[in-house]
Amino acid sequence: MKAYIDCYPCFFNQTIKTARRITKDEKKIWEILNQVSKFIPQIPFGATPPEIGREIYRIISEQTGVEDPFQEIKKDCIQQALSLYPEMRKKRDSSRDPLMTAIRLSIAGNVIDFGTSRTFDLEKDVRQILSQDFAVCDYDEFLRGLEKASRILYIADNAGETVFDRFLLEVLPVPITYVVRGQAIINDATKEDARISGIEKEAFIVSSGCDAPGTIMNLCSEEFSEMFRSADLIISKGQGNYEGLSEEPLPIFFLLKAKCGVIAEDLGVEKGSIVLKKSSQIN
Amino acid sequence: MKAYIDCYPCFFNQTIKTARRITKDEKKIWEILNQVSKFIPQIPFGATPPEIGREIYRIISEQTGVEDPFQEIKKDCIQQALSLYPEMRKKRDSSRDPLMTAIRLSIAGNVIDFGTSRTFDLEKDVRQILSQDFAVCDYDEFLRGLEKASRILYIADNAGETVFDRFLLEVLPVPITYVVRGQAIINDATKEDARISGIEKEAFIVSSGCDAPGTIMNLCSEEFSEMFRSADLIISKGQGNYEGLSEEPLPIFFLLKAKCGVIAEDLGVEKGSIVLKKSSQIN
Repeated sequence: MKAYIDCYPCFFNQTIKTARRITKDEKKIWEILNQVSKFIPQIPFGATPPEIGREIYRIISEQTGVEDPFQEIKKDCIQQALSLYPEMRKKRDSSRDPLMTAIRLSIAGNVIDFGTSRTFDLEKDVRQILSQDFAVCDYDEFLRGLEKASRILYIADNAGETVFDRFLLEVLPVPITYVVRGQAIINDATKEDARISGIEKEAFIVSSGCDAPGTIMNLCSEEFSEMFRSADLIISKGQGNYEGLSEEPLPIFFLLKAKCGVIAEDLGVEKGSIVLKKSSQIN
Repeated sequence: MKAYIDCYPCFFNQTIKTARRITKDEKKIWEILNQVSKFIPQIPFGATPPEIGREIYRIISEQTGVEDPFQEIKKDCIQQALSLYPEMRKKRDSSRDPLMTAIRLSIAGNVIDFGTSRTFDLEKDVRQILSQDFAVCDYDEFLRGLEKASRILYIADNAGETVFDRFLLEVLPVPITYVVRGQAIINDATKEDARISGIEKEAFIVSSGCDAPGTIMNLCSEEFSEMFRSADLIISKGQGNYEGLSEEPLPIFFLLKAKCGVIAEDLGVEKGSIVLKKSSQIN
């Protein structure tokens, strides 16, 4: 999905939000905004939001000397999520359709996001999503895909959301490769975040090699690209991965909450919707 | 008032909003955003929002070839305001304090604004402001100022709001010079707008010579600057004039609705508040 014109002001909102985590110096933040402002026009029309976001967060790090401003927040989110784990696991296991409940829980974890202008209340949002109607729900196709798949590539999104991914990983019937970012970017999950979240018990963790807040194929490692191209079923979590992968000709199921208006429009759903959407490659 | 860092994304929101009035070509709008993006870092830290806005709207005009995208809208707003005039005039005249009601009505007209992200419903907003509490109300000082003033300089804001200014102009006890922008910018009032609104009956209309969406002293004509510096009472309408004049050492009363969070913060009031605020030069 290419960046829409409405992404433009959002890039500056994200810059302000992140820079304010690092410094209270308004003049310094203005200078960072100026750097971002000089950079964006160099990007070709048609670039995806994570490609642009990657550079913006690089500029913030360069200008402030702080490489990973979300390190502590990520740990906090994982702990918050872990505290909900036992109760939510019970909810899944006692539900009529544990796989469906697991999908919902996995999407619910997607509310943990520091890249959008939205704020969240983890516990409240999770409970709400557990009873929210899907705007798109390609569940039958997902079940058919599962039957045929010998291995699943599961592309993770944010730290903390990783704990919610476990609910789904635990009930998927085939081996899973769990893909995280190549390095810290916003609050996106890295290998360490996945480990602290307890993913290792359920899946083999690999890095995509990508340092953008999403999966951009030409920024991924060759090793991951091969894995990706040969996968028979891919689960893609969250907005950043959707933005990077929505036009890839591969058998992907996108699981996300449409937290911003632009993504909602691209998906043809209302803002705030939850979706389980197959890519156009899946009949 | 210098531009705050939160003005930064708003400049891009304004660009999108205005460009969309002119074209549906997303690529063209992206190019306009890129031009704005290249321009803003050239502005010195500490510039006021109208100084920056002036250049942004100039870029939009240059890039689209449309000099005055708000021409029709301004006429519509004036007509809408004129249709409310008879009823509101009666309201003022039958009120306990017609001067205070006139001040309220003049502020109510300030909801007509296409430079902020806010939308408005003129009739509804006017009725609401008629009973809204002031967050700042230096009315006693205003009355004392009126007693001493031999002439008032009234700095207008937007077309349509001009009609609402008449309620106040009609009850002010001394001659008034009514100041409009030097040329069309956003929906700010020009001489023609003031005339169509019926201002000529009540005041002498002059141009500030300024082509920014606010009053920036170093962009005003020498003639107006002299008038301004020698005035014994100045009424400044709206956000743009406040942004340009808030630090000028002159006897100004600011009448406005704080439609954006940044202005509200600068005034120390809640967003949405109405104020009649004296400048620091007035005891």
